[in-house]
Amino acid sequence: MATRPRTRLQQDERRAQLLELGGELFNSRPYDEVSVDDLAAAAGISKGLLYHYFPSKRDLYVATLRSSADELLRATEPDPALQPLERLAVGVDAYLRHVEENTVGYASLLRGGIGTDSEVAAVVDDTRGIMIDRILRDIPLERPAPALRLALRGWIGFVESAGLEWAENKAVPREKVSSVLISVLQAAISGALSRQ
Amino acid sequence: MATRPRTRLQQDERRAQLLELGGELFNSRPYDEVSVDDLAAAAGISKGLLYHYFPSKRDLYVATLRSSADELLRATEPDPALQPLERLAVGVDAYLRHVEENTVGYASLLRGGIGTDSEVAAVVDDTRGIMIDRILRDIPLERPAPALRLALRGWIGFVESAGLEWAENKAVPREKVSSVLISVLQAAISGALSRQ
Repeated sequence: MATRPRTRLQQDERRAQLLELGGELFNSRPYDEVSVDDLAAAAGISKGLLYHYFPSKRDLYVATLRSSADELLRATEPDPALQPLERLAVGVDAYLRHVEENTVGYASLLRGGIGTDSEVAAVVDDTRGIMIDRILRDIPLERPAPALRLALRGWIGFVESAGLEWAENKAVPREKVSSVLISVLQAAISGALSRQ
Repeated sequence: MATRPRTRLQQDERRAQLLELGGELFNSRPYDEVSVDDLAAAAGISKGLLYHYFPSKRDLYVATLRSSADELLRATEPDPALQPLERLAVGVDAYLRHVEENTVGYASLLRGGIGTDSEVAAVVDDTRGIMIDRILRDIPLERPAPALRLALRGWIGFVESAGLEWAENKAVPREKVSSVLISVLQAAISGALSRQ
């Protein structure tokens, strides 16, 4: 990456710029191979100034993950104008496009880029929780049965494992992955809600 | 745990004893809270002797994981006398019983008990690979399509996520979890193999 000239930016712009650069760097190389020197050089600022915004590489990393998770949630925001099944299809497609465009970041997030970091785990768990709540909103039940929660949690695991496999090997067309994810969700929900 | 009296054991027996003790301790507390002193005291041997068998706490931990994964694979070994669907049902039930009996170990293994350790990841990945191969053996195809691999990989993710959720909250009967897992697998396979 070319070194950018040092420029004076407003605090908010600077923070946004660092988040974007961090996202690019962490998305192109494993966490351990990104140094604070790389980050500062890419931003065209001193290490001291970088530390002013993010006290450590880990802080910047967690912030880029959070910003990437926010982006994923925005991209997959359910459209209330659609019917539930179409809403789901659009959301799943947007999710897979996000995986396509953020392969390394997605993989390192789910494979535990920096181990058992509790803040990283929280970003992942919060995102899962929001995705589950979105699906629950489309299922007319007074109180979601424990079996339904378990099935939805399982489905998120399916999406993430298939997503990781797919991120590493794009041999399957996105539409196919999407249709498998949708039929699996339908089977999971009806399995959970059936009497048997 | 009561301290056991020091005894002289044959090398193989001693190793097996340490693996079992390690399994018990790592299954009852998080990795970071188990010390080499605890392990040696529980086995009734000196730290020096413990280090002779396992050079570090991590080595013992990885060995107990491997032994627990082997146990899981043995417990879920497919019975060739059964029909495919029954074979699957028996296997899924055995898997869930294993989760029931090894809750903490199962959770710490899948949540990344010691972070991004590559040996731990290898134990998990090998186990997944064997489970996928067992299912593939029951699907008569000359060469498994990439979509089928992706669907099976996704299903393993479903099993693990639902298994973790279930391990933490047993509100759903095992038979129910089992039936959800089986219908999800069927949907995943037919989704992957369908033309559309």
